[in-house]
Amino acid sequence: MRAPCTFQAVRPQTLGLIGLGAIGGSIARQVKQQGNRGGDEITVIGWSPEPAERALAAQQGALDDAPPRATDVARNADLLILAAPPAANINQLDALVPHLKPGAVVTDVGSVKRAIVARAEQLGLHERFAGSHPLAGTHRHGFEASRPDLFRRAVVYVTPCRHGETAAREIVDFWEHVLEAEPVVLDADRHDAQLAATSHVPQIVASLLGDFLARHAPPGASLGTGAIDTTRLAASEPRLWTEILLMNRDELLVALRTLEESLGSVERALETGDAPALTAWLTRAAEWRRGVGP
Amino acid sequence: MRAPCTFQAVRPQTLGLIGLGAIGGSIARQVKQQGNRGGDEITVIGWSPEPAERALAAQQGALDDAPPRATDVARNADLLILAAPPAANINQLDALVPHLKPGAVVTDVGSVKRAIVARAEQLGLHERFAGSHPLAGTHRHGFEASRPDLFRRAVVYVTPCRHGETAAREIVDFWEHVLEAEPVVLDADRHDAQLAATSHVPQIVASLLGDFLARHAPPGASLGTGAIDTTRLAASEPRLWTEILLMNRDELLVALRTLEESLGSVERALETGDAPALTAWLTRAAEWRRGVGP
Repeated sequence: MRAPCTFQAVRPQTLGLIGLGAIGGSIARQVKQQGNRGGDEITVIGWSPEPAERALAAQQGALDDAPPRATDVARNADLLILAAPPAANINQLDALVPHLKPGAVVTDVGSVKRAIVARAEQLGLHERFAGSHPLAGTHRHGFEASRPDLFRRAVVYVTPCRHGETAAREIVDFWEHVLEAEPVVLDADRHDAQLAATSHVPQIVASLLGDFLARHAPPGASLGTGAIDTTRLAASEPRLWTEILLMNRDELLVALRTLEESLGSVERALETGDAPALTAWLTRAAEWRRGVGP
Repeated sequence: MRAPCTFQAVRPQTLGLIGLGAIGGSIARQVKQQGNRGGDEITVIGWSPEPAERALAAQQGALDDAPPRATDVARNADLLILAAPPAANINQLDALVPHLKPGAVVTDVGSVKRAIVARAEQLGLHERFAGSHPLAGTHRHGFEASRPDLFRRAVVYVTPCRHGETAAREIVDFWEHVLEAEPVVLDADRHDAQLAATSHVPQIVASLLGDFLARHAPPGASLGTGAIDTTRLAASEPRLWTEILLMNRDELLVALRTLEESLGSVERALETGDAPALTAWLTRAAEWRRGVGP
């Protein structure tokens, strides 16, 4: 049962965003669009390293204020959300800790969680930080790609620090009650292992095919919807994904060796004309895929 | 310039279909649905090894007649289309040649072309056969998956036999004028090399990821739209794809070695923390993908 005092905590008076891209921008839009539904209106302030992005977000009503320095946001936020790429979030956490408002809690929205949770623990933020990872990405980026409904019914993983249950609960409540998302609390280690399989390996596989087609598809050759679907993720932002993949490289290296072995087994089946082996391999994938959706 | 007599040839009086799955069924539906637009109505007869499929196709108005034997279709068709899986098409070609109507032309709709074109040449069908490959697949199969508009504006590769220009032209005209598709004449060798890259490798890559996720995605873990899109092709029919991959295995083995090398380069970049190499690899794929569509 949720104590009434918790409900206070989920509605920060002032929400601060560091980063106003597709994710940060969408948080700001959704909070401002819903106005004071369910409680007092939340003031949203935000910072981006790009002055034009700050101006655009303010102009479109996604921010109440867009101060020129990240520290101005940190000083005023009851809940501070780091919404830059993963490595920049860690740097911002380092830089902004001395400027946090007393009692403020902090989260981020990166798709790798061990590194930033470990850094928060090193900084003594156990009771003030939990990581977040909304499964609501888009391969488009920048404030232009933000939407006012990106998080509604989206799964959001929340990864606490050790002994960080209180901060995690506040952040869970924010996602659930303010953004109408579906938060799931998960240990950062388990998160990164799971996401290696369900997100980071798919990114590598899509890019692997994209890179292959970039080099080997005859110019002007028609691509079926199959090749188009299979490579959709390859359009994702390369620098962001370089950070994600490197931050999860120990998990990924194990996974990529498994992929290599599987590819090797297909090659052997083709070389030896082993139809039953090929069919068995294709069938395992087909049955799994038919089970997860259209 | 197209001679007037060619236009006669594009409207066979009787169209025969061997195979009534998603492709064969869609051809029948489209021909019957458009009725006698642009000329005399075409009689469509078809055969499937499954009596229930024959009955369903006739009942739904896709066929004028569904005789119990494939030879009955061959004997009466001015244009005979083999629409079974690739290996069965070759067997049907062998079996039906003695029963073809004088002057009839024959094509197939398989997605590998060297093997069946070579077999047609061995059978002395140079002037009566050209292969076809409509880029209008679906990972669903059976007559239930057929549609009356599958070929409209679809690219259809037509692969002639040596000295088989006349038959190829008749088949091109049929796709273009009867089914409103966009036929492209292509040498069978070039076709199979091109499709290895644009279709068969994407199928293997999607199945590679599907097989990996079948074994390594934690049960109940949320999958993003990325993993869903990247594995969509993995749901395709395993036995059909076993045939396609084996019939194009020499092209595919070369391609799979290239994929393996590329995967190896990603692993080395992850092992050594080589961010610029990873970014360059991801960027090549991203630029290609952004260039081919949303």
